[in-house]
Amino acid sequence: MPKVSPRTLSGFMELLPEQQSKMERMMEILRRTYATYGFTALDTPVIESAEVLLAKGGGETEKQIYSIPREGGDLALRFDLTVPLAKYVAAHYGDLAFPFRRYQIGKVYRGERAQRGRFREFYQADIDVIGDGKLDLLNEAEIPAIIYRTFTALGLKKFRIRVNNRKLLNGFYAMNGMSEKAGEIMRTVDKLDKIGAEQVRRLLIDEVKMLPCKAENVMDFMAIQGSVDQVLERLENYRGMDATFDQGLDELIAVTKYLGDFGVPEENFALDLTIARGLDYYTGTVYETEMTEHPEIGSVCSGGRYDNLAEYYTDRQLPGVGISIGLTRLFYVLGEQGLLSDSHVDAPCDALVIPMTEDLGYAISAATALRAAGVRTQLYGEQKKFKAKMNYANKLKIPFVVLAGEDEIREGVLSVKDMTTGRQQKLLPEEAAAHIRQAVAARNAAPVIREK
Amino acid sequence: MPKVSPRTLSGFMELLPEQQSKMERMMEILRRTYATYGFTALDTPVIESAEVLLAKGGGETEKQIYSIPREGGDLALRFDLTVPLAKYVAAHYGDLAFPFRRYQIGKVYRGERAQRGRFREFYQADIDVIGDGKLDLLNEAEIPAIIYRTFTALGLKKFRIRVNNRKLLNGFYAMNGMSEKAGEIMRTVDKLDKIGAEQVRRLLIDEVKMLPCKAENVMDFMAIQGSVDQVLERLENYRGMDATFDQGLDELIAVTKYLGDFGVPEENFALDLTIARGLDYYTGTVYETEMTEHPEIGSVCSGGRYDNLAEYYTDRQLPGVGISIGLTRLFYVLGEQGLLSDSHVDAPCDALVIPMTEDLGYAISAATALRAAGVRTQLYGEQKKFKAKMNYANKLKIPFVVLAGEDEIREGVLSVKDMTTGRQQKLLPEEAAAHIRQAVAARNAAPVIREK
Repeated sequence: MPKVSPRTLSGFMELLPEQQSKMERMMEILRRTYATYGFTALDTPVIESAEVLLAKGGGETEKQIYSIPREGGDLALRFDLTVPLAKYVAAHYGDLAFPFRRYQIGKVYRGERAQRGRFREFYQADIDVIGDGKLDLLNEAEIPAIIYRTFTALGLKKFRIRVNNRKLLNGFYAMNGMSEKAGEIMRTVDKLDKIGAEQVRRLLIDEVKMLPCKAENVMDFMAIQGSVDQVLERLENYRGMDATFDQGLDELIAVTKYLGDFGVPEENFALDLTIARGLDYYTGTVYETEMTEHPEIGSVCSGGRYDNLAEYYTDRQLPGVGISIGLTRLFYVLGEQGLLSDSHVDAPCDALVIPMTEDLGYAISAATALRAAGVRTQLYGEQKKFKAKMNYANKLKIPFVVLAGEDEIREGVLSVKDMTTGRQQKLLPEEAAAHIRQAVAARNAAPVIREK
Repeated sequence: MPKVSPRTLSGFMELLPEQQSKMERMMEILRRTYATYGFTALDTPVIESAEVLLAKGGGETEKQIYSIPREGGDLALRFDLTVPLAKYVAAHYGDLAFPFRRYQIGKVYRGERAQRGRFREFYQADIDVIGDGKLDLLNEAEIPAIIYRTFTALGLKKFRIRVNNRKLLNGFYAMNGMSEKAGEIMRTVDKLDKIGAEQVRRLLIDEVKMLPCKAENVMDFMAIQGSVDQVLERLENYRGMDATFDQGLDELIAVTKYLGDFGVPEENFALDLTIARGLDYYTGTVYETEMTEHPEIGSVCSGGRYDNLAEYYTDRQLPGVGISIGLTRLFYVLGEQGLLSDSHVDAPCDALVIPMTEDLGYAISAATALRAAGVRTQLYGEQKKFKAKMNYANKLKIPFVVLAGEDEIREGVLSVKDMTTGRQQKLLPEEAAAHIRQAVAARNAAPVIREK
């Protein structure tokens, strides 16, 4: 029979079991952390009507979309989790209580040009808080705590949550009479990390066509750095010149006031006036998260405050604040950097039970008992040489092999071989379960991300 | 601005938060149970090349597929998890250890005519064990234990795992000289539950054109019932007439021999000769699972042994055994039947912290402490009347409200109100956490499925 080549499309992540185990662990940590902060799980369809999905329309998004042609209206695959959230909240408004806090971890689709580290199908892990008409600033203040807890739970220590406020920026540009150039300026300032201050100043003058003194103002403003108190103090010098700026500054003060109570250490947090996060969507606090030893990775968790989630579907004002982790990309770069821990048991099971007698009853009962005690157990039934069975356990990195032969049956015990140390001991079934469970739990207590 | 109607496509399940919480709970139980039996998690792309996905080609499948037209070869959405598994095993053969045991819980897509309880996007929860060249019968014997444990973990008691063997059936038809009519006969016998024995007998004679005596043979065979031992004993009467039959009978004997050691009670298990499960794919043991009080739902977990998983992609012989739960449909019918328990905390959080003072520091610290202690906590920061805040907690069915006012701050305590009993008490923060955690754990220990 002619064969079809069993290929996976490029730009689609398909992991081997050991890697998938690590990915599952990360997802579980995200689910648990988001739930700890009172976010409810949501799951919306991958397919939506194209009309609904592209209600905002235009731009790069439309070109990248996966369309499914249908008479009576095309369908399309979601390209983010925000548009489906907007649809969901507008469609189920009457059934929800506000503020509505949801997390969603799901696959999204963008038909981008395939390149290394770019994915066409990828997981996003989003949380959003949506208010009905209003949404208190406290929600914005809480976001850094969630980011902090999430990455700490993953095992990351060297990261910094960078926060800015769009009103502050817009106010600053307004007081300098450069509101109409604000977009261009922000895009240029965004290159600071890459090309440095001198180059940015030159671009502001040569390309954005700013007067040198105004470019200087921008550079001075963007250069404001230091502790939260230091930055806020220097920003006070601009107070009173623009109402929007003052509001933005008040919001920054409120958002940073309770950092300690939220449990966010100063060293993992910074006010950073160079952060803008896109142009037309965010209206208040904005967030980025940088791995301090790996700035080249860019932001691993970003988001901000917006005033109008679902304006294309409803007249209701639905302000919100949210953040998103590009999970597939994060997993990929962590792997590339060698930052994924190998300490965990990523094998399909904790114990491989190998029957050594014709009658399998004892071995099966042993496996059943181990499973009942919470040990992930595989029963090995293939007719192979003993060495092949042990090779199987080794190849899969199964931590314990459990042998059930005539001696063990007679003594009512199990021979438990620790595949890491090579040590083998006879234990009662309940002892074996406890021993294995304990050893596996110790290994699995390690953080997923292991910094060097 | 003109609005787009925020609709969700028909045939796509989109749950409200409380229902989604129940669904998440079910998925978590499935993941945990499958892992307990040594299955590794897998996640393959939703989109595959149409050529790969339709390698087998033809039939109903192709008509129902969601296609994404592309120059250089259409793409398509997966319609089950078996074809992607076949592709995966063929593509990654060299990196896998066999037997390869994987579970996958994922969405699949079929553009069926929409009707009540039929879904176009639905979760399947599959496990498969794939051998390289050979696969021991022990794997087939283990499947009922996995089904038993899965449904027991979900809380179901009244269910029966029905098992048959395709070799037994094929052998039986061969010994009666009706092999070429076997397909037609099996399709007719499949109606036994619905139309009864008399009607089936008539159809076998009138439609399938069988001699009355042969139809009688079929009816006699299909009428074999009773305990495992009784059925096997009556099947012994047919031994020696057909080699395939004898092999099937030996397999049935082997598959049922260790039921007790696997922990499967007799009352949850039956040999049922009327089960066939499709025509050309399964080659050995086949499984169905019936909710005994709800036979109208049909099988909620089915599968069987097959000899050739990936013949369209590789020359390698890859026999396997697997079962599948149609999770979205199961969730839907359980809901329809009122079988989903309301005992759990399906609210987004366990505790709603309501600050009662201008300064939020104390309330935020309390929330941080509760979260650190594993209590899913929401901090309520909206400027509303107290009554509105309590209404919010009630609407979401949040089990505990935690008040932090001047008195509490002075005394260093929290006022914890149990929203079920109405009882309010002052507790130290660590006491509050322990109290809430305990109460929530007790409620969440209830099974997901609550039989009447």
